[in-house]
Amino acid sequence: MYSFKNDYSEGAHERILNALIKTNYEQTDGYSTDEYTENAKALLKKKMCREDADIHLLVGGTQVNLTAISAFLRPHQAAIGADTSHINCHETGAIEATGHKVITTKTDDGKLTKELIQRVLDSHESEHMVQPKLVYISNSTELGTLYTKSELVELHRCCTENNLLLFLDGARLGSALVSEENDLTLEDIANLTDAFYIGGTKNGALFGEALVICNDALKEDFRYYIKQKGGLLAKGRLLGIQFEELFKDDLYFELARHANEMAILLKNALREKGYKFLTNSSTNQQFPILPNNVVKMISEKYSFNIERIIDEDTTAIRLVTSWATKKENVIEFIEYLKCI
Amino acid sequence: MYSFKNDYSEGAHERILNALIKTNYEQTDGYSTDEYTENAKALLKKKMCREDADIHLLVGGTQVNLTAISAFLRPHQAAIGADTSHINCHETGAIEATGHKVITTKTDDGKLTKELIQRVLDSHESEHMVQPKLVYISNSTELGTLYTKSELVELHRCCTENNLLLFLDGARLGSALVSEENDLTLEDIANLTDAFYIGGTKNGALFGEALVICNDALKEDFRYYIKQKGGLLAKGRLLGIQFEELFKDDLYFELARHANEMAILLKNALREKGYKFLTNSSTNQQFPILPNNVVKMISEKYSFNIERIIDEDTTAIRLVTSWATKKENVIEFIEYLKCI
Amino acid sequence: MYSFKNDYSEGAHERILNALIKTNYEQTDGYSTDEYTENAKALLKKKMCREDADIHLLVGGTQVNLTAISAFLRPHQAAIGADTSHINCHETGAIEATGHKVITTKTDDGKLTKELIQRVLDSHESEHMVQPKLVYISNSTELGTLYTKSELVELHRCCTENNLLLFLDGARLGSALVSEENDLTLEDIANLTDAFYIGGTKNGALFGEALVICNDALKEDFRYYIKQKGGLLAKGRLLGIQFEELFKDDLYFELARHANEMAILLKNALREKGYKFLTNSSTNQQFPILPNNVVKMISEKYSFNIERIIDEDTTAIRLVTSWATKKENVIEFIEYLKCI
Amino acid sequence: MYSFKNDYSEGAHERILNALIKTNYEQTDGYSTDEYTENAKALLKKKMCREDADIHLLVGGTQVNLTAISAFLRPHQAAIGADTSHINCHETGAIEATGHKVITTKTDDGKLTKELIQRVLDSHESEHMVQPKLVYISNSTELGTLYTKSELVELHRCCTENNLLLFLDGARLGSALVSEENDLTLEDIANLTDAFYIGGTKNGALFGEALVICNDALKEDFRYYIKQKGGLLAKGRLLGIQFEELFKDDLYFELARHANEMAILLKNALREKGYKFLTNSSTNQQFPILPNNVVKMISEKYSFNIERIIDEDTTAIRLVTSWATKKENVIEFIEYLKCI
Repeated sequence: MYSFKNDYSEGAHERILNALIKTNYEQTDGYSTDEYTENAKALLKKKMCREDADIHLLVGGTQVNLTAISAFLRPHQAAIGADTSHINCHETGAIEATGHKVITTKTDDGKLTKELIQRVLDSHESEHMVQPKLVYISNSTELGTLYTKSELVELHRCCTENNLLLFLDGARLGSALVSEENDLTLEDIANLTDAFYIGGTKNGALFGEALVICNDALKEDFRYYIKQKGGLLAKGRLLGIQFEELFKDDLYFELARHANEMAILLKNALREKGYKFLTNSSTNQQFPILPNNVVKMISEKYSFNIERIIDEDTTAIRLVTSWATKKENVIEFIEYLKCI
Repeated sequence: MYSFKNDYSEGAHERILNALIKTNYEQTDGYSTDEYTENAKALLKKKMCREDADIHLLVGGTQVNLTAISAFLRPHQAAIGADTSHINCHETGAIEATGHKVITTKTDDGKLTKELIQRVLDSHESEHMVQPKLVYISNSTELGTLYTKSELVELHRCCTENNLLLFLDGARLGSALVSEENDLTLEDIANLTDAFYIGGTKNGALFGEALVICNDALKEDFRYYIKQKGGLLAKGRLLGIQFEELFKDDLYFELARHANEMAILLKNALREKGYKFLTNSSTNQQFPILPNNVVKMISEKYSFNIERIIDEDTTAIRLVTSWATKKENVIEFIEYLKCI
Repeated sequence: MYSFKNDYSEGAHERILNALIKTNYEQTDGYSTDEYTENAKALLKKKMCREDADIHLLVGGTQVNLTAISAFLRPHQAAIGADTSHINCHETGAIEATGHKVITTKTDDGKLTKELIQRVLDSHESEHMVQPKLVYISNSTELGTLYTKSELVELHRCCTENNLLLFLDGARLGSALVSEENDLTLEDIANLTDAFYIGGTKNGALFGEALVICNDALKEDFRYYIKQKGGLLAKGRLLGIQFEELFKDDLYFELARHANEMAILLKNALREKGYKFLTNSSTNQQFPILPNNVVKMISEKYSFNIERIIDEDTTAIRLVTSWATKKENVIEFIEYLKCI
Repeated sequence: MYSFKNDYSEGAHERILNALIKTNYEQTDGYSTDEYTENAKALLKKKMCREDADIHLLVGGTQVNLTAISAFLRPHQAAIGADTSHINCHETGAIEATGHKVITTKTDDGKLTKELIQRVLDSHESEHMVQPKLVYISNSTELGTLYTKSELVELHRCCTENNLLLFLDGARLGSALVSEENDLTLEDIANLTDAFYIGGTKNGALFGEALVICNDALKEDFRYYIKQKGGLLAKGRLLGIQFEELFKDDLYFELARHANEMAILLKNALREKGYKFLTNSSTNQQFPILPNNVVKMISEKYSFNIERIIDEDTTAIRLVTSWATKKENVIEFIEYLKCI
């Protein structure tokens, strides 16, 4: 049964595997002190036009989030996130396990705004409450939506004015940046956030996320934190080789573009059938709202996740495409859809 | 410059890479719920003759240690380890960061004994002190030494009598089990410990450690802990594929035997030159004690770690071999040694 | 300026002070191993008809909550509380600082119900989310409301059915138990919760809270946790002496009855003036909703806390009475109210 | 049976009780924002000639240590202490429970030296190990010994040169400062440490320790940490009243002088009988080394703690005097000693 469950159902892009094979017997230093990691960092810094950024390659998103957030916050400080945020919903309390509260707020579409942040600040002004300090956003969000440049500029301003850190979870940053509706560049992200990560696992790598720290105040001793949290990979070169391959040319973005193209094909087909969506997503996660009998029929041939029960008769599902999604499978799905 | 620095300087054995390539485009469920992981677990359980064991595949040793120890202990409980133990020396306080003290004791050779454990218990009998609860040992140890079966039986008995858990860090378990001087089997380890892990990273895998939980009381909800600590790999199948390959036949042990053979060649050569060793190791880490000028000369052609300053003129170094160590490089080293 | 700000503005009831004076030069063992503490425990066990309960005397409410909750939960487990709960609002993330998430839910009146709990359980069924395990309620609540016996029985049943622990914060338990509208006894509380505490600080003691653990599974090694969290008072006898005095006869409940009487006088006067209340409280916290100009005028003569802004023109304030509230001050307030 | 077990067997000095009685019905703000606390802080700042110090009044020593150390350290940082230090031996891993390792070193007499510190620094130079950052010393030490001014100056210099914080646990600071052999003033302590606390519990107060933070970098948001760790006393005025009474004149030091005088009487008597001591203490803890039969006989009439087994026949015990020790009980003990 073909799966549209997520963007980590397959291994890696062939060029990634080839790079690993090619370098396999070379001896390198461990713990990300190898030259592939250095090369990868240099490529990334160049791409974001920030020679001063500190970059750390880690294995997975939850690992990055808990390591970064616990490193950036003082004990009494908390993170602010949407109630749909990954750190609130899908990390088994990883942030709280490091001692920090996650203050959540309802959003329309998975995105934070300066008004929502201000509301949190206004209700946390006492020393008898945690001190909000880090704003956590994802781009694209858990609901497939995007931040426009002006939205991110506004968040950045709000954070600067209120002495907050802005941290962007880029597990699906590739898909966000190549979206038709996107007007942000990687350089913008680096300039408008205090730290963010570029997701590799969901975009062609076997595994890997590149944490970028732009704010000088957050850089010191970061490798200690990675090791302490169990995230310093012995064969760190594996991360360097993969990110080098993804960023030596346009591969990272090509793979994301493919994922988005497949998603838009699905989106258009669903739209033509008259279905509405939970959010208007232009990225690789689509959330059509379907009658339950349609959901059932699709589930007979395809795997996918249920996103939300809308009412007795209707359910929003999640369809995810990736670098690995074959067009033929998408076409087949669309054809099947027509029959239902 | 050839490196004898550690056993994680290269990628993976060719069969591992081929297995990853072969399965690359297959869609699997994430987070280690895939069938490769199931297969790998079945193979491991069979090999250790423990159908009842719970097995979890994680990415790295520090991750395993901090996840397991913090899961197994109640807040007031502590781990006991040798002062040379990995959790005390090389994990940047990963265990303490989860809230638990590591009580250390000096040892002769990196190995704990029931006497050393008893001494710790005798000095921790008050509720004003942490309650020792878990005994942490490594096999092979950080100093290359091994536990014999009777030693492990004695430790097991000591732990049982004192209501302690016995946890074995098997980062280099392969090398230990195939050592000429070893009389333990994988089945023994499973029967004599409450939990242990089988190291993949240092023995042919790209990355990966198989945590085996034999004590029923420690099994419940373990996957929650892995996720909470950031260790639940999205593409968990990568771990399953690797461990399946390592254990479908004798590959894991073949690779370890090779590493040991290379180490013994080095050991014999060093011994013939009249050098003594920090410990009498029969595994893939050798610790020759050398005059400083010899250390200097070796360092002009080879990379290795300094283990310990013995005195003004003498230093103990660490030479590590692995599945990837080419015999020709070992021979070359031995020849070079003869000239110095 | 007279203060209705809270119930901890004064020292202690005169009998408490006298008991401390009387016993002052007696030598006792430290850390709550003294005979006064033993007597106090015996009196409490008798009063709640639970000879099998374990009782620990601690200094303050936040200390009790963080020590108990972190002791009762495994790392992946979370507490459920009302969004108005003390652990969510007024403890500077003390629970999260021990590693545990607090899952909150909106309530009408500060009280949890089985429906609200079920909703939390239904949305936390995955190992990628924390596992709800402890239900935290306060009696009286932060909004002055009470649980009736049937409500507590229902919560108890819900928790038992769902394998949850029920923990009751009794910072103001005295006021709750003597309320005209209360039908619970101390014995009921002991039988319907897994653990709870009896607040002394807010009811006549200089300081002190008595944590009662009824569930056998939660008792083991509890003193270790108290010490580890910094809560084991060296001169523990001070807690024993105070609780002995409060419970050797009816003093604890007398003091609470006085507090409630004063509160009801205020409540009736405010009601007569036509004011509504945020909640219908029969305990020592009253939450009248007043026009802002009235709030201003009251503030010229009295201290009190603002509870909530209702709209542009209206604010809910909090008036708190205690064992120390003099009737003359209450009468004076009522008279002043008539003029405004 | 008279007890020389510790210096917290009795309540408080009569002036403390009187002050509490006198102020009992006054309404004050809570959480240490009252004017008594302000007065106490002013008195302390004056006494140490540091108007710029931040002072926080907490309830007990373990609470101070865990709150301060976890506030002052970043996650990867550790404290250094003697193996006899309170944080290593008598706090049930309170520091580790906040996530930080305590690196210990053997000492002769409970005192750290720059050489011992340097040895720790030399063995912790890798990012794979915790980063030593805070040096924890007690004055007087757990073994009754003192730091001279030149010793503290040297430690201060060592810490400054190595970018370490120097934290002094002053649970028995009174006894240290009034010792015949002491040449430090309170002002010196304030100038030579980054933070320290003045112990009240063991020197005449019912409870209470005054944490003094001199290093500006450590001051920010400290009240948040106190609340988060459960240490912010609701009736904070109780601490203010007690410290005001202790420091409005010479009471604090008078009480300590009395304790020391009693200790010296015991010391001289024991010395005259030819007994040796574990340490040469001039403060209120004395550690005579006695034949076991003598220990037994003393134990028939007096309570005291066993400090250390010296050999089969000899034991070092601990005798503690305090502000409450009656001279007549000391004389009686001395007389009894003569008969044994």
